[in-house]
Amino acid sequence: MSKRVVGVMGPGADAAPETLRLAFELGRLIATQGWVLLTGGRNSGVMDAASNGAKSAGGLTVGVLPSAGTDGISSAVDIAIITGMGQARNNINVLSSSIVFACGMGAGTASEIALAIKAGRKVVLLQADSASIAFFKGLGGNNVVAAQSPEEAIELARVNDGLAPRIC
Amino acid sequence: MSKRVVGVMGPGADAAPETLRLAFELGRLIATQGWVLLTGGRNSGVMDAASNGAKSAGGLTVGVLPSAGTDGISSAVDIAIITGMGQARNNINVLSSSIVFACGMGAGTASEIALAIKAGRKVVLLQADSASIAFFKGLGGNNVVAAQSPEEAIELARVNDGLAPRIC
Amino acid sequence: MSKRVVGVMGPGADAAPETLRLAFELGRLIATQGWVLLTGGRNSGVMDAASNGAKSAGGLTVGVLPSAGTDGISSAVDIAIITGMGQARNNINVLSSSIVFACGMGAGTASEIALAIKAGRKVVLLQADSASIAFFKGLGGNNVVAAQSPEEAIELARVNDGLAPRIC
Amino acid sequence: MSKRVVGVMGPGADAAPETLRLAFELGRLIATQGWVLLTGGRNSGVMDAASNGAKSAGGLTVGVLPSAGTDGISSAVDIAIITGMGQARNNINVLSSSIVFACGMGAGTASEIALAIKAGRKVVLLQADSASIAFFKGLGGNNVVAAQSPEEAIELARVNDGLAPRIC
Repeated sequence: MSKRVVGVMGPGADAAPETLRLAFELGRLIATQGWVLLTGGRNSGVMDAASNGAKSAGGLTVGVLPSAGTDGISSAVDIAIITGMGQARNNINVLSSSIVFACGMGAGTASEIALAIKAGRKVVLLQADSASIAFFKGLGGNNVVAAQSPEEAIELARVNDGLAPRIC
Repeated sequence: MSKRVVGVMGPGADAAPETLRLAFELGRLIATQGWVLLTGGRNSGVMDAASNGAKSAGGLTVGVLPSAGTDGISSAVDIAIITGMGQARNNINVLSSSIVFACGMGAGTASEIALAIKAGRKVVLLQADSASIAFFKGLGGNNVVAAQSPEEAIELARVNDGLAPRIC
Repeated sequence: MSKRVVGVMGPGADAAPETLRLAFELGRLIATQGWVLLTGGRNSGVMDAASNGAKSAGGLTVGVLPSAGTDGISSAVDIAIITGMGQARNNINVLSSSIVFACGMGAGTASEIALAIKAGRKVVLLQADSASIAFFKGLGGNNVVAAQSPEEAIELARVNDGLAPRIC
Repeated sequence: MSKRVVGVMGPGADAAPETLRLAFELGRLIATQGWVLLTGGRNSGVMDAASNGAKSAGGLTVGVLPSAGTDGISSAVDIAIITGMGQARNNINVLSSSIVFACGMGAGTASEIALAIKAGRKVVLLQADSASIAFFKGLGGNNVVAAQSPEEAIELARVNDGLAPRIC
């Protein structure tokens, strides 16, 4: 049976330092759960930080890349899927993830959250501002939840996926 | 030289009656401008209404479809592009459009607006609520404008594309 | 109802002069039939020649392009579909074509013929050598036919699509 | 640095028993080399057999699936990439593989070999008939080699990738 793959989406070169710190920690916790980490695979921003976090805990990392060549792949990606389809690959990212974490915000990230909602995936927002949370909850209802920390993001993923009892 | 193609994105079966009325009128005005209309091509919602509007004015309509077969194509689509790629085709919709109109809102539509911003396309929002306008202006800055009517949407498209002087 | 779209596939910059001459004539005859011509859209080889042939007869031309930008589009393409997906767009070319003509041969063209067979499309080979004809008939059986001239290619398309009685 | 990924392509439900036997052995040898196996991911034919072979030797397996859902995935696939793009995913298969093995022949397999040649990948044909070998060598020249056994296929991959000295 195939392994449990979860996605972490987020901005590339524009990501703020605090966003990168949270992405690293989120990646580390994902690996600790025994889950495979899937990102957009490039050597910048949240993709790179989360992949490095997962590797720091001995995890397995998959990168689904927009380009057709092998340049610009994060050195922390174990399995590089080369799509050559640009941002059309965003839909592959969400279809391949049993749950989608979004860390930070940007146009590409927003497209992935929207596609995840469209595909019926649960989405956990981390470090999203209140306008983003309101907008995406308006689109996705209960399938969209917001976390205050990487630890809470993991817990919400476990609860929403039926892996853990809801804590009252 | 290839014809000017503009995109109209919007919800499918969930679209409200007023959204459909605006989409029809927007499609009609696009055809009147001599522009080719591109939509997601299905026989429901904004795609179908805008295409019917364009045909009512003798326009040319292109539908870029998610499915692999010929079922479910709007009868108002002249040229059907069958992608078989599901929502990954949303990126083709925006890359192929010189400007993107969004009429109404939904998860698929939101993904197309975000992908349009990512690709550097101008986006004209029609019948978007204030939360959506605030969210997408936050992502796209001046590349995102909101219109109050189909007529204003066309005028904003002309101004933003350098086809008309800005009216003061 | 959507217009009848037929595809012409063939090599780009490597196409021989005679291949280009046949592609131009094939495009011209397709337009004469009232069919919409679909090609890979670039300004080289069979794509460009067939599109110019169709325009010489007042036809309508669609180009489904591999790149994400507007460079390199044939000036004879009316409707440019910008996929940004490289050769993955080859599958869109064949799904969108009610019948696929292959004029000349190359790696990209071979992939489109194979994808057409996989999708159940009829394929008409023009200027294919005997090894190519044998190989693709082995894959596609009666769905693959070879023509000696553009005129015969059109006739075979009409017969195979049930548009004309088989001539005995 | 990302792991070395190699692709095994071949027919699905139509594969002959001997083709399946060779695919299993090829997958086993790939895992023995320490390479990651990439296939089309479905639970039939060469994809399933090669993946089972790799797992029998403790290897890691990736499946790049055509469908949008989780049905029909080979139980021997560790990492499922869900594309929802049908046969357009064939181009991802070859771009993501440092070398492409084709075991048996069919329309989908032929499209992958052609796309691999187009992308400049080396192709090793296993159990291909002489017509197929002649056709693809005509397209790809020295980038296409034919092997008589899984062991020779691996050796040819090592030689062609510069991993082993050519044996005289």
